[in-house]
Amino acid sequence: MNILALDTAGKTAAVAVMQDDILRYETMSNTGLTHSETLLPMVDTALHACNLTTDQIDLYAVTNGPGSFTGLRIGLAAVKGLAFANNTPCAGVSTLAALAWGVAGAGTVIGALDARRGQVYWAGFDLESHERLTQDAAEPVQNMENFVNSCKKPLIFVGDGAALCYNKYGSVPGVLACPQPLRVLRGAGTALAGKALWESGGCVSPAALLPDYHRLSQAERERAEREAAKNVESTPAL
Amino acid sequence: MNILALDTAGKTAAVAVMQDDILRYETMSNTGLTHSETLLPMVDTALHACNLTTDQIDLYAVTNGPGSFTGLRIGLAAVKGLAFANNTPCAGVSTLAALAWGVAGAGTVIGALDARRGQVYWAGFDLESHERLTQDAAEPVQNMENFVNSCKKPLIFVGDGAALCYNKYGSVPGVLACPQPLRVLRGAGTALAGKALWESGGCVSPAALLPDYHRLSQAERERAEREAAKNVESTPAL
Repeated sequence: MNILALDTAGKTAAVAVMQDDILRYETMSNTGLTHSETLLPMVDTALHACNLTTDQIDLYAVTNGPGSFTGLRIGLAAVKGLAFANNTPCAGVSTLAALAWGVAGAGTVIGALDARRGQVYWAGFDLESHERLTQDAAEPVQNMENFVNSCKKPLIFVGDGAALCYNKYGSVPGVLACPQPLRVLRGAGTALAGKALWESGGCVSPAALLPDYHRLSQAERERAEREAAKNVESTPAL
Repeated sequence: MNILALDTAGKTAAVAVMQDDILRYETMSNTGLTHSETLLPMVDTALHACNLTTDQIDLYAVTNGPGSFTGLRIGLAAVKGLAFANNTPCAGVSTLAALAWGVAGAGTVIGALDARRGQVYWAGFDLESHERLTQDAAEPVQNMENFVNSCKKPLIFVGDGAALCYNKYGSVPGVLACPQPLRVLRGAGTALAGKALWESGGCVSPAALLPDYHRLSQAERERAEREAAKNVESTPAL
């Protein structure tokens, strides 16, 4: 089974080719260029290196949220386009699960993405089995305190929100440091999470592949705020 | 500090750019193509993606053994050529240390490369500190039994010799499974091992960069055997 995995959910972009559980090619780019510039050349280079064409891809794995709204749309649109011709199955995997599948060991791993506005997207996973321990959430860092204190140790944080978590919880007993290069979202993690979703029957057609934003967009939030303010203004004083 | 890291010691090739402790770009290729075909295009793509030239590289990190003799020569020759113009410092890092620096957690990690002839190149490291626990050795898998039984657990094996180790020790209590995609030698691990060598003052000029083969080449071994046989023949019977 040939899996092509893509991630553009956060600040980094990643691509991997996994063939029958063997990683054939993997790239991660963290150069400040937009995902729309980097993603398809990365895919092209990976397929070319593996002597594969899209006709030979049996499964696309892509992070479908949480993450940057624009980033998610770039990754999902690319996969929908690549998978359309052959109606190839697609695995829309949680960005936080893809982060967790990129590391091995025992204990707990928290995948965390910088969600701005003082929040992180986060979820906890068992490091050995990659079993999910909490649902994906968008919250201030302090809201994960109970989980951090009570989860099985050691605990490591990965993802572009890990630095925020280490700032808050780095001195909790059992929390391990993890250098930035080992915290990045890997194409290998996305491929492994996609394979696990395939095995559990969770894959969909390219048409049914959807983002999971986990919160309203800025435009939707601002409209809701404006409408709420209007309703207050138009409510007659008692 | 801009570090360009290269690895061609085993079956896979890897390149990474690390800039002030931040991983900017990473590629791993495991496509069956020879390193001489893949390495320099990978370097070119990585530098181009990071908008860097070799003039801006402050340190080259390269795995200098153990590993395939031809693979090591390709990596070292490439780095010597790239570093020559500016006499840029070079970190010749143990392939097994580069493997260990590519994983995070607590416990022990054994970096293992398939050395053929029923042997593995192996060394043990503390997973959290990456402190070396044993010297690089070329031995049959069964020779690491004492270390495997007595080291701090959990224990994971990484590298293209890990499968041989899991076959022998996978059922030892505290030995953790690690999927193949997370066992590959990462450019990130090579860069981190190179940075550590730089900090300990262990870097050299490109001219002084040398391979550490850890055993005689096949040609040298066969000559020694022929000469030993000749000596036996020419020894007069008592």
